[in-house]
Amino acid sequence: MTDDPLEAAALIAVDWGTSRCRALLLGKDGAILAEADSADGIAALGGNGHEEAFDRLVAGWPNRPAIMAGMVGSRQGWREAAYVEVPTSLGALSAGLLRFETTRHRPMAIVPGLVLHSAERDGDVIRGEETQLVGLMEKEPDFEGLAILPGTHSKWAAIRGGSILSFQTFMTGELFELLSKKSFLRHSVSESADDLSASPDFELAVRRSVEADLPFLAAVFSVRVRQLLNGVSGDDNLAYLSGLVIGGEIAAARRIGLRRTGEAVRIIGSRSLARAYKKAFNILGEEAETLDGTDLVRAGLVVIARANGLL
Amino acid sequence: MTDDPLEAAALIAVDWGTSRCRALLLGKDGAILAEADSADGIAALGGNGHEEAFDRLVAGWPNRPAIMAGMVGSRQGWREAAYVEVPTSLGALSAGLLRFETTRHRPMAIVPGLVLHSAERDGDVIRGEETQLVGLMEKEPDFEGLAILPGTHSKWAAIRGGSILSFQTFMTGELFELLSKKSFLRHSVSESADDLSASPDFELAVRRSVEADLPFLAAVFSVRVRQLLNGVSGDDNLAYLSGLVIGGEIAAARRIGLRRTGEAVRIIGSRSLARAYKKAFNILGEEAETLDGTDLVRAGLVVIARANGLL
Repeated sequence: MTDDPLEAAALIAVDWGTSRCRALLLGKDGAILAEADSADGIAALGGNGHEEAFDRLVAGWPNRPAIMAGMVGSRQGWREAAYVEVPTSLGALSAGLLRFETTRHRPMAIVPGLVLHSAERDGDVIRGEETQLVGLMEKEPDFEGLAILPGTHSKWAAIRGGSILSFQTFMTGELFELLSKKSFLRHSVSESADDLSASPDFELAVRRSVEADLPFLAAVFSVRVRQLLNGVSGDDNLAYLSGLVIGGEIAAARRIGLRRTGEAVRIIGSRSLARAYKKAFNILGEEAETLDGTDLVRAGLVVIARANGLL
Repeated sequence: MTDDPLEAAALIAVDWGTSRCRALLLGKDGAILAEADSADGIAALGGNGHEEAFDRLVAGWPNRPAIMAGMVGSRQGWREAAYVEVPTSLGALSAGLLRFETTRHRPMAIVPGLVLHSAERDGDVIRGEETQLVGLMEKEPDFEGLAILPGTHSKWAAIRGGSILSFQTFMTGELFELLSKKSFLRHSVSESADDLSASPDFELAVRRSVEADLPFLAAVFSVRVRQLLNGVSGDDNLAYLSGLVIGGEIAAARRIGLRRTGEAVRIIGSRSLARAYKKAFNILGEEAETLDGTDLVRAGLVVIARANGLL
C-alpha cells in the first residue's frame, strides 16, 4: 500500500450543494489525485446523515482533512457556518472557517457564506459562490470589476482591492424555468432549443431590455403575442424569453449600480450559460470573459485551506 | 306559460372565459331576469361542444338572441372573432361584432377582442376585458384616464375622448402564483393570508418598487432573505411579495408611459384584488376608484347589443 499514489494526498476538497456532492482528493500542491461524485445533495439528505454520506463518497481514499463549501454549511447542512459580512477580504473570509471533527476524529472545515446588510433592500446572502470568488481572486489577484455566476439563482459580485464589496442575487434561472415550463407562456415556447443566444430573437430581447429599458414585467407577455400575431416559432420564442430574463437581469443590475462604468466582467459557470451571458454583453458592445466554475471552486478551497494551515 | 315573467326577456348576455361560462337573461331595459353559470370554460371544452354547452346552460330559458364576450371568441372558442385594432371607438368595436346562427337558427354574436400593434414591443391583445371597458365608458361617458383590470393577466387601458387608445398586459397574478407556490420562495411565504394589502410589508414593497424604483428582478430574492435573516413571518412575507408584484406592475406601467400625470384611475375587478390595487395607489399618494367587474360586463354587452340592433 505504500506505493499507492493516493497516499500523497493532503486534502479532500468538497463542493456540496443542494442537489449533488462532489469531492476531490488533492495533493500538497493542489493537484487532483482522485474525484468522486454522488447525488447525496443537501436537499436529498433532508438534514440527516451527512457524515455517513461523506464517508461513503470517500470510502476508498486515505484519511485526510476535508474542506467543504456550499449548502453543507446551511441550516439544513452538516453544520451551520455563520455568514461573513461584506465587504470582506480573503483574510476575513478565511477566519470565518467553521472547523470541527467527525465522530472518527477527521478534521473538517466548512467555508462560511456571505451576507450583505442593506436598509434599502433587506440584504442578500451567498452560500457556495464565495469560494468561486476566492478562486477568481487567486487566479487574478489584481482583478477589479464584476464577477457574474449565472444559474438558478444568479449572483453578481463587485470585487475591488482584493475584497468582495457587494453582491446581488437574481432569480433568473428559476424565473426562466417557471415561465417557460409552468406558465401560460409554455404554449408559446419550445421545451428546449440549442444555442439560444445565437438567435436574432435573443439579441432583440436583450436590446429591448437594456438599451430600450423595456421593463421586464411589461415585456414578458409579448412572448405570447409574438406567437399569436406574428407566428414566431417556439424555438425563436424560447430564445426571446431567454434574452428577456438575461437582459432584464443586466438592466436591473445597472439600475442598482453594482458595477462602475467600463469595469471588467468575468462570467463564471457552465459553458452554455456563461456563453449566453457573454453574448448578451457583446450585444451591448461590452467585453466579458468566461471562466470555468468547477476549476475556481477547487482553487478557492485550496486558498482557504492554506490560509488555515489545512494544506 | 304566457304569465312566465321570463317571456319578457329580450337578450342572453354571456361572459364565457377560460374557466367558466356565465349567462344572464336580460329584459329589453337590460335588467337581469335570470342567471346561470357553469364550469364549461373554453379550456375545459378543448375546442368542441360549445353549442351543446350553451344549450345546456340556457335550457330553461326562452329562445332569444345571445351576445357573448371572452375566450369564446378565441381560436379555441366557438367562433374566432377577429381583433379590432386600437385606438378604437365604441362604434368601431361594435362594428367588429361577429354574428352567426346556431344550428337551430338562434342569432348569436361574439364581441371582438382588441389588438395593439407596436414596433417597440410586438403589440398586445385583449379578449374579454374590452367589454368591461365599454361598460365603463357607458357608465362614465366623459371618463379620461386609466382603467386597470387586475387578475392573472392584468390589463391597463388608456381611455380618452370616448376611445380606447392603448393598453398593456402584465402577467402579475400568474407571476404571484408561480413565485408564491412553485418557486424556491414558497418556503418563505404562507400559502394564503387575509387582507394582504393591510400589512405594513405590502406598503414597504410598493414604496420600494415605485418610489425607490427598485427593479423587480433585483427585489424578488429578498423575500427569502427577509425570512432567513430577519425572521419575517410567512403572512408578512406573502404581503411583501404581493406588494412587489403590484408595485412592480405600477412602476413598469409608469416607465412605458401609459398614463398622463394626474389622470384618473379606475380599478375594475373582484373586491379583494381591486382593494389591493387601490391601496397601492393610495400608498403612493394617488386616488383610485374601484368598480365591480361583473356589472360592467353586463353593461358593456347591453351597449354593444343595442348598437347592433340585438336589443
